[in-house]
Amino acid sequence: MRRLTVMTAADPAPTAADHARTPVLIGLDWGTSALRAWLFDAAGTALARLTGGPGVMAVPPDGFRAAFEAFCAPWLAAHPGLPVLAAGMVGSRQGWREAPYAHAPAGFGEIAAGLIALDDDAGRVLRLVPGVRAEGRQGSIDVMRGEETQVFGALAARSVLQSADAAHRDGLFVLPGTHSKWVEMRAGRIVALRTYLTGETWAVLRQHSILGRLAADPPADDASAQAGAAEAFDRGVRLGLASPGELLHLLFLVRTEGLFDRLRPTQTPAFLSGLLTGAEVADALVWSGREMAPTLIGDDAQAARYARALALAGVIGRAAPADCTAQGLFAIARAAGLAPHPPASSSR
Amino acid sequence: MRRLTVMTAADPAPTAADHARTPVLIGLDWGTSALRAWLFDAAGTALARLTGGPGVMAVPPDGFRAAFEAFCAPWLAAHPGLPVLAAGMVGSRQGWREAPYAHAPAGFGEIAAGLIALDDDAGRVLRLVPGVRAEGRQGSIDVMRGEETQVFGALAARSVLQSADAAHRDGLFVLPGTHSKWVEMRAGRIVALRTYLTGETWAVLRQHSILGRLAADPPADDASAQAGAAEAFDRGVRLGLASPGELLHLLFLVRTEGLFDRLRPTQTPAFLSGLLTGAEVADALVWSGREMAPTLIGDDAQAARYARALALAGVIGRAAPADCTAQGLFAIARAAGLAPHPPASSSR
Repeated sequence: MRRLTVMTAADPAPTAADHARTPVLIGLDWGTSALRAWLFDAAGTALARLTGGPGVMAVPPDGFRAAFEAFCAPWLAAHPGLPVLAAGMVGSRQGWREAPYAHAPAGFGEIAAGLIALDDDAGRVLRLVPGVRAEGRQGSIDVMRGEETQVFGALAARSVLQSADAAHRDGLFVLPGTHSKWVEMRAGRIVALRTYLTGETWAVLRQHSILGRLAADPPADDASAQAGAAEAFDRGVRLGLASPGELLHLLFLVRTEGLFDRLRPTQTPAFLSGLLTGAEVADALVWSGREMAPTLIGDDAQAARYARALALAGVIGRAAPADCTAQGLFAIARAAGLAPHPPASSSR
Repeated sequence: MRRLTVMTAADPAPTAADHARTPVLIGLDWGTSALRAWLFDAAGTALARLTGGPGVMAVPPDGFRAAFEAFCAPWLAAHPGLPVLAAGMVGSRQGWREAPYAHAPAGFGEIAAGLIALDDDAGRVLRLVPGVRAEGRQGSIDVMRGEETQVFGALAARSVLQSADAAHRDGLFVLPGTHSKWVEMRAGRIVALRTYLTGETWAVLRQHSILGRLAADPPADDASAQAGAAEAFDRGVRLGLASPGELLHLLFLVRTEGLFDRLRPTQTPAFLSGLLTGAEVADALVWSGREMAPTLIGDDAQAARYARALALAGVIGRAAPADCTAQGLFAIARAAGLAPHPPASSSR
């Protein structure tokens, strides 16, 4: 299934009119379960967007080129020779080709230098964005693949808004999800990252453990049930924040609170989510030192849950601009010389 | 499937020869997934044992009496009128009848007073052991059902070995499992308990999460793989013990350590188990105050894993006698007047 969106006047206006409307780059966000694509003009504005393509898990090992060419066929036919930049799990062992992780500290320069070229593609310029790896404490290694592009997109947007000075490109970024990532950036380079299995732990406990048996999703049109779920989320967050080291015990509370009618079935998934999110946020704030206000990158509902958990911890988070991935792809393409720099900017 | 075991001379000898060999009680351990039964003489010696009966989940709501009578048919035919005492989830909402939890502090007296009588059973004396509930900090409630009988069995055995003085019946008991329980006893009464979802979390992550995809069980006959798994368990325990509040992050290490070939597939399940067990033990030792040496109740392999985790935390655990459940059933029956007291004992 391919959905084509042609951008309208409501989208961000081109910053340089003479660059506008002429495509210069195709960007791909090719993750485990989905493929999206953008057609960019020279100002980084998306002229068109495709969604609903097959994720990496749905493509056979030798089928990536065919899947890409089928998905982007109209663009490739209308604009032959455009360079292509792809980010996400397409660069993993299970993807088109493995793009070795760039080592932290990693900024635009390191990412651009780490692009993998698929030169065998009939003369087409197609590059894969590497993931980023960072050493944790005690020698452990943490990794991301795809999220680095979102972080650079948020950074590019922020630098436009605030300062083009690299020294001010510091930030703490939170990317909630199946494997949520906390990313610390200093002077425009990713210096540290930390992954939590929060989303996946929630999902497997919800679906496969005894905790899920008493759980029900609150109906979207039942305001009372929604409010009850929000209250249960808060209650869970407070417990997780206060005692992250008790998490395996707190999880059993999901059962006992239900057993003694202190938690309704429609509150159970939210309470469980709150416990896990609270435990994650408690640890991540210790890890990050509470020095920088976190920027939340993700879909609205997830970002709102994390913003709430942060608020209960006394921390104000801010939301990243929408479509960080598209902005990040274009910013990396610029850094790698695949797309032109803006006429009057020192942006690296 | 019913398996009948007739006890041999290798079993504990009767303490009073004149009581021996005449059955006085049928004891049932009727849990979620299994049913076992013992035929006791007046000294508490098991004359025979049945295993392999249907668990609570396998019995229809109105089928418990029939399931019991079918399972114990030979005993009921040979010894009509024997009293029956049953412990476990058979006394839950999903069981034969709900036996309300006894409130901590709960000793033999409170448990005996809380027995539920199924008097409708055609004149047969059949009693259900209540579970125990205890208030946790901040008003939370923790519960167990079945484990209290094991703890009282371990206590009965200890009191024989050490002292019959109630004032010395203190102990910390650890019951590893799907939902592992830590139970604190003072002067012969359960005063506090704490449940951890450790075993179930391990199982759902092993079976349903990305962590399980790279995992393989070490072959039982491969000593090298077994040693590697033991090493990985220790490594996981140390991480969990050191940083229980980082658990959701540590879980992602299972993936990255595999990704960078620091963990073999046959080490993965043990490493995951170590992380979770370490996090549980770290918190439980804080909760219990490290005041008493824990007694481990459970099957040999599980008890050995917990003993190892405790040792890595600097705590020496000891193993409970085998068949604590049978001993507990008989001790509770005595306290309730369903079985005779020993001729020369002050045991309550």
